[in-house]
Amino acid sequence: MTPHGTLETPVFMNVATQAAIKGGLSASDLKAVGCQIALCNTYHLHLRPGEETVRKLGGLHGFMGWDKPMLTDSGGFQVFSLARLRKISEEGVSFASHLDGRRIFLSPESAAEIQLKLGADIFMALDECVENPAPYEYVKQSAERTARWLERTANFLDHQRATEDGRPYGESVGWGINQGGTYDDLRVDHMKRIAELDMPGYAVGGLAVGEETSVMYHILDVVGEHMPPDKPRYLMGVGTPENIIEAVARGIDFFDCVMPARNARHGRLYTWEGRMNLLNERYKEDDRPVDATCSCPLCKNHTRAYLRHLFKAGEILALRLAVLHNLTFYNTLMQKIRDNIENGTFAAFRKRYAGVLDGRAAP
Amino acid sequence: MTPHGTLETPVFMNVATQAAIKGGLSASDLKAVGCQIALCNTYHLHLRPGEETVRKLGGLHGFMGWDKPMLTDSGGFQVFSLARLRKISEEGVSFASHLDGRRIFLSPESAAEIQLKLGADIFMALDECVENPAPYEYVKQSAERTARWLERTANFLDHQRATEDGRPYGESVGWGINQGGTYDDLRVDHMKRIAELDMPGYAVGGLAVGEETSVMYHILDVVGEHMPPDKPRYLMGVGTPENIIEAVARGIDFFDCVMPARNARHGRLYTWEGRMNLLNERYKEDDRPVDATCSCPLCKNHTRAYLRHLFKAGEILALRLAVLHNLTFYNTLMQKIRDNIENGTFAAFRKRYAGVLDGRAAP
Repeated sequence: MTPHGTLETPVFMNVATQAAIKGGLSASDLKAVGCQIALCNTYHLHLRPGEETVRKLGGLHGFMGWDKPMLTDSGGFQVFSLARLRKISEEGVSFASHLDGRRIFLSPESAAEIQLKLGADIFMALDECVENPAPYEYVKQSAERTARWLERTANFLDHQRATEDGRPYGESVGWGINQGGTYDDLRVDHMKRIAELDMPGYAVGGLAVGEETSVMYHILDVVGEHMPPDKPRYLMGVGTPENIIEAVARGIDFFDCVMPARNARHGRLYTWEGRMNLLNERYKEDDRPVDATCSCPLCKNHTRAYLRHLFKAGEILALRLAVLHNLTFYNTLMQKIRDNIENGTFAAFRKRYAGVLDGRAAP
Repeated sequence: MTPHGTLETPVFMNVATQAAIKGGLSASDLKAVGCQIALCNTYHLHLRPGEETVRKLGGLHGFMGWDKPMLTDSGGFQVFSLARLRKISEEGVSFASHLDGRRIFLSPESAAEIQLKLGADIFMALDECVENPAPYEYVKQSAERTARWLERTANFLDHQRATEDGRPYGESVGWGINQGGTYDDLRVDHMKRIAELDMPGYAVGGLAVGEETSVMYHILDVVGEHMPPDKPRYLMGVGTPENIIEAVARGIDFFDCVMPARNARHGRLYTWEGRMNLLNERYKEDDRPVDATCSCPLCKNHTRAYLRHLFKAGEILALRLAVLHNLTFYNTLMQKIRDNIENGTFAAFRKRYAGVLDGRAAP
């Protein structure tokens, strides 16, 4: 339940980094592909056009024309992956914009405030995302700092709500992020500590950043036991179709990933028989749809041969049609997961598609 | 009347160079912007994916999913503007592909055959498009050759229809193209000569290629008197909204131009008060639609500020929304022209918008 409606979980959040889906999709296209909740990036929008501009234009909902739920990330991940000349301290993180080198400082408080101004229904607390593997001592200190940052985030929000008239930022809620690298004890200690803050939702961050998939699943098993049982759980930045099914089996409710749109833009399309590379010569005169069972505009109206031609000819319609398809696939995947959970057939579903969805489709 | 339906003229043909509209528009988007007839490019499609592939996939209609009328150009214009190492002879034109340097030969017969295989409803005879200004003697010889090429095109088509079973290329018709540069006598002589061939339609080519607009209008006046009065007239590659209104006043029925889509991709949008440059800083927080009277997806759903943000952020959604708008504008312009002609108010309409549509909109 968010200010912009209710969500059916497990759910995949469709990533609109700069208040638009890469590949030329608008908010109305998002509805057409079955998206329930969009995710926008604080780092990018803070740099351009800036949260004050977005706020004047009706927040992200008004700005991009999206009237359903919206989550923003904290910007932390991008600060640690995109920005330059990064300097982290107890107070926050200072960095140079990757666009123009401008010096920017982000604290737990300012990260929260930016997201509130952007108008997120759900915002994420600032954390440090450490690449795996990293030294135990560094991860320990970083996770402790991330926990203190979450405390400050919670205090900031309480303070805002207590002091300002009429809750100027509406019903937005902030979620905390579990860190601790690949170390079971750090993960568990951190999770226990942030659970005490009684945030309305919790994410697991710092996964799918260098470690083996089996390690990611292990961490989910270990941390899952200590996550509040009645609150939504979000696995950040994950992942492949099979990653998602496996994480759902481990209790995860929310996902986001740039992979379906990025793969689409490179001609890699998901089907229920595995991934297809549409740039392949074999599709040159293939008059079948990419996936005969799919209801997206690409599969309804066009052939594999036409899509391949568009890629080869450098037409951006290729990107658009491919992204429409892959996002439809991901949102359909989530619908199937929900249906199978409801029907008590999730175990069979999981088994049916293991080793299939992340592999290559037969020609 | 074409094999794929009837057209209301005057009409603007929306340009789908490589069987797709630049800016990420599909055939279904073309319908949404009010397009009656699409135009594809023989030169580009011959190079990639090749007419045999297109033919196997149902011709251009099946290939791109477009079920309304379709015109293809002859490839001549691109041979003379894009290709390299061009060598023209009585037989035809030899050139190197701009993609891979492959040597290609195009004759009046092969240009027609390629277009028939592509499945055009209306195809254009091969001509030489000479840039203006050019020496009188060269233009004279070139125009005479273009006339002889049209004769060969007509003979080829007759031969095809007489010898092959069941008219394998359906009801496609070929139109002739008037040339003669900026020389009144050459234009008139050429027009008289090709009129004798009794083609079902005639185009005026070789305009808007370097000469002043007033010269173009003058040539239309001069040639118009000698065009068959009962056959459609097509002004190739023209033009601005005011060019189109002026050419309609001179009896032209068909237009095509890459300008609306190209301008859109550079942030220049047409409105009934003139052109706007959406990259301009002044639109940063402008919460109005580009044109409140427009029914395109951009104007219905988004603000000027959002479109500007998309351009600044490098999102291809910017290109798509802007192209959707400009093509809607052009197709609406043609609708208004038709309505005003029907209502007997075209003269007032022409006067009302003279000096407005091609100028800059007030801030």
